[in-house]
Amino acid sequence: MFRNQMPRYEILSQDAMATLDAGWRRLISEVGVEFMSEEALRLFREAGQKVVDNTVFFDPEFVLEQVAKAPREFDMQARNPANNVHIGGDAMVFGAVYGPPFVREGAVRRDGTLDDFHRFAKLSQSFAALDSAGGVVCEPNDAPLDSRHLDMIYALQTLTDKIYMGNVVSGENARDTIAMGEILFGGRESIEAKPASISLINCNSPLRWDDRMLDALIEYCKAAQPVVVTPFILMGAMSPVTIPAALVQQITEALSGIALTQLIRPGCPVVFGSFLSNIDMQSGSPTFGTPESGIGLLCTGQIARHFGLPFRTGGGLTSSQVPDAQAGYEALMTLMPTFLAGTNFVMHSAGWLEGGLVAGFEKFVIDAQIVEMLQHEFTPMEIDEASLAYDAHVEVGHGGHFLGAAHTMERFRTCFYRPFLSSSDNYDRWMRNGGKDTAARAADIWKKRLEDYTEPPLDEAIKAQLQEYVARRRRELGD
Amino acid sequence: MFRNQMPRYEILSQDAMATLDAGWRRLISEVGVEFMSEEALRLFREAGQKVVDNTVFFDPEFVLEQVAKAPREFDMQARNPANNVHIGGDAMVFGAVYGPPFVREGAVRRDGTLDDFHRFAKLSQSFAALDSAGGVVCEPNDAPLDSRHLDMIYALQTLTDKIYMGNVVSGENARDTIAMGEILFGGRESIEAKPASISLINCNSPLRWDDRMLDALIEYCKAAQPVVVTPFILMGAMSPVTIPAALVQQITEALSGIALTQLIRPGCPVVFGSFLSNIDMQSGSPTFGTPESGIGLLCTGQIARHFGLPFRTGGGLTSSQVPDAQAGYEALMTLMPTFLAGTNFVMHSAGWLEGGLVAGFEKFVIDAQIVEMLQHEFTPMEIDEASLAYDAHVEVGHGGHFLGAAHTMERFRTCFYRPFLSSSDNYDRWMRNGGKDTAARAADIWKKRLEDYTEPPLDEAIKAQLQEYVARRRRELGD
Repeated sequence: MFRNQMPRYEILSQDAMATLDAGWRRLISEVGVEFMSEEALRLFREAGQKVVDNTVFFDPEFVLEQVAKAPREFDMQARNPANNVHIGGDAMVFGAVYGPPFVREGAVRRDGTLDDFHRFAKLSQSFAALDSAGGVVCEPNDAPLDSRHLDMIYALQTLTDKIYMGNVVSGENARDTIAMGEILFGGRESIEAKPASISLINCNSPLRWDDRMLDALIEYCKAAQPVVVTPFILMGAMSPVTIPAALVQQITEALSGIALTQLIRPGCPVVFGSFLSNIDMQSGSPTFGTPESGIGLLCTGQIARHFGLPFRTGGGLTSSQVPDAQAGYEALMTLMPTFLAGTNFVMHSAGWLEGGLVAGFEKFVIDAQIVEMLQHEFTPMEIDEASLAYDAHVEVGHGGHFLGAAHTMERFRTCFYRPFLSSSDNYDRWMRNGGKDTAARAADIWKKRLEDYTEPPLDEAIKAQLQEYVARRRRELGD
Repeated sequence: MFRNQMPRYEILSQDAMATLDAGWRRLISEVGVEFMSEEALRLFREAGQKVVDNTVFFDPEFVLEQVAKAPREFDMQARNPANNVHIGGDAMVFGAVYGPPFVREGAVRRDGTLDDFHRFAKLSQSFAALDSAGGVVCEPNDAPLDSRHLDMIYALQTLTDKIYMGNVVSGENARDTIAMGEILFGGRESIEAKPASISLINCNSPLRWDDRMLDALIEYCKAAQPVVVTPFILMGAMSPVTIPAALVQQITEALSGIALTQLIRPGCPVVFGSFLSNIDMQSGSPTFGTPESGIGLLCTGQIARHFGLPFRTGGGLTSSQVPDAQAGYEALMTLMPTFLAGTNFVMHSAGWLEGGLVAGFEKFVIDAQIVEMLQHEFTPMEIDEASLAYDAHVEVGHGGHFLGAAHTMERFRTCFYRPFLSSSDNYDRWMRNGGKDTAARAADIWKKRLEDYTEPPLDEAIKAQLQEYVARRRRELGD
């Protein structure tokens, strides 16, 4: 997996951090946070926090005590041990887009299907830059609503041998995710020792945790499966328009949720989540890859480190409707800060289009290209005597070229990163090859990847058990 | 003008800097640098440097003494004083693409013309993110070869009121540039006190300065007009394949040229230049927006600061043939490090396509959009009590929205950067508006900008003098 050993780019001064620190302490204690779950409220009440109706008014010191129980870093198991991941420290985990109801394939935009889900899962398996297909890589609208989580988990478990994300629609769906993890990884003990799934718990920002999300969070924490506790903030709508206010709110929401995870099961692995962008104040539309979201992202990394927590931000976000220039520059406007901040868990790393409403096949390839380039860029180079190539200069002299120099011949195969999508063909060659733009070349690539795909081997007995579980649960759910 | 008050992102350790330092000292003293100019060789010989044929073997301490004479920062005058620029420190100057023989306008790719040059100059005037049209924004192939520099300088002086770059094809062309600057800015004294042009002097890398470039450099330095002393390095061809070797070569070439500028006229303003990317080792094609070029760029900033010099790097570079997703992400792959490094003088900020062979009208708009976004992103935010918007949280409470909050109403017009090109329209609205991708919207924008363009006012007497100069010189040059 990729480890980012380059320096972090930090932009908050100590004074700024102190201001934000005072801000969340006031917000969490005086305005408080709503939890739409009796169990959560009971846990907080029993722990001595002031609870009025559904609102918990926190003692900030209590919150920090809970947060301190969470591990700074943890491991996760994939069914192919080569794809195990570490979450925290300098490790970065990349997963595909999560949640789009629609897909785009060339000029066609339509409802996502289970077949699309399968194809995206296979592509996630195929691209080495990705550690995971994520969870809901697109919504399989043609699968029965109550049981489609079973179809998705089964696909993630069988079509990929990488880590996957759990379902969070309800506590029941979380229990299914956990049960299927137990089947795949040899029982409860195995997944409690090393988690088999990680799940996204979104806040209903501002300052409210909803019942279904909390039910799922509670199930996962009981089973020691990590959750990504994520304030969902489009500044201007779900938070004030000023970035510092959004950051204070983000800290308040994330820490309140993380405190709950540690009351449920002290030491349960957890990730400080962030989904932070802004709306267009004229149209109300969400916007992505904006200057404000980039700044927020850089600050978020610094804040998460301040609290000693692994964190999630970033991805290849864009508002663009198609995989065009805007899609390219907006994706990188978020992905570059994602690397600069050293984000530990990166959702939406590939395939995000149209503000997250669309999973794009071509965009998937474009993002995988960008992520792989950045993985190379954020790998420190060695600077030693051999790297100075003095002998090559003596050999080539003034005004010559290095194409045939001994130093070049020794290194030419691996010296530079070679992209799979970007073209540097000269104009004539490019025209002879069909004059294809990046989206057209990306379409060729994902189609070829699917042709070449082979399902990673899985013990037939385990596969049968999973199928049996899915069939039984589907019957129970009435689908 | 834009000042980058965000932190610099520096990736070289002290040890690494020491290794590079030892490297250039060895290279400049033992392999030396070729100067294809008798005048340059004479100056170095008289200054006590060892000269063998055309090669100067430098004493590194002598080089550093010369470099120390160059100003750390300086000002330049534009004919509209509001467009004066500062070069060095935290100031960043953005100029358009420089040098392409071809242009792309929609689906048409063809030879550049003087009319294209005029249109790009007008667009450079129109976009506030740009401080300059640069110099050869495209090659005006339909203008007579020997006198087209006069057409270009005249266009830059009259169609824009921003700073411009001088012609460097020969010493004679440099003298014409200087003479026309004297006319525009009220005489030699004025432009010597505050320079009126800045010029690009490329090295014939590795380790050779050619005669025509040196002739131009000498003319400009005599007139105290700044030059951008630029190693031109595509790693693998003009330098060894390892980045540290390329950096050592870059230091050697740049400092040797800068030493010459200070022998010609001590204290003459100068910029440490860098044009650093790599070739594709399979095809030999130049590639841009690569991980290696990004790393090189970040290091270059740190190195230039180490020597106390303003520096040039960056731009919206891409190998892409069309203004597509690759053009978007590759441009930003260079422009983001350009800002992270705090580059003082940014050439190729707008319009670069196809490895610099093509000036693209749509790409011009895309890059201007990216630069403007980054200018906003690299502006520090204020973090104080008001920015925390505590009252807005009290007003909105849990699960509400901030669209109508008093804090929002006070700030909604200016709180977020609003792009002129990027679209966040929802799908239906986007389709109703024609379903235009970014390149199509960019075409609408540049056409509208040209329609709305008005020539910045210029004293008619000065204009007549410039026209007279151009006409006389054109006759003398036989065109």
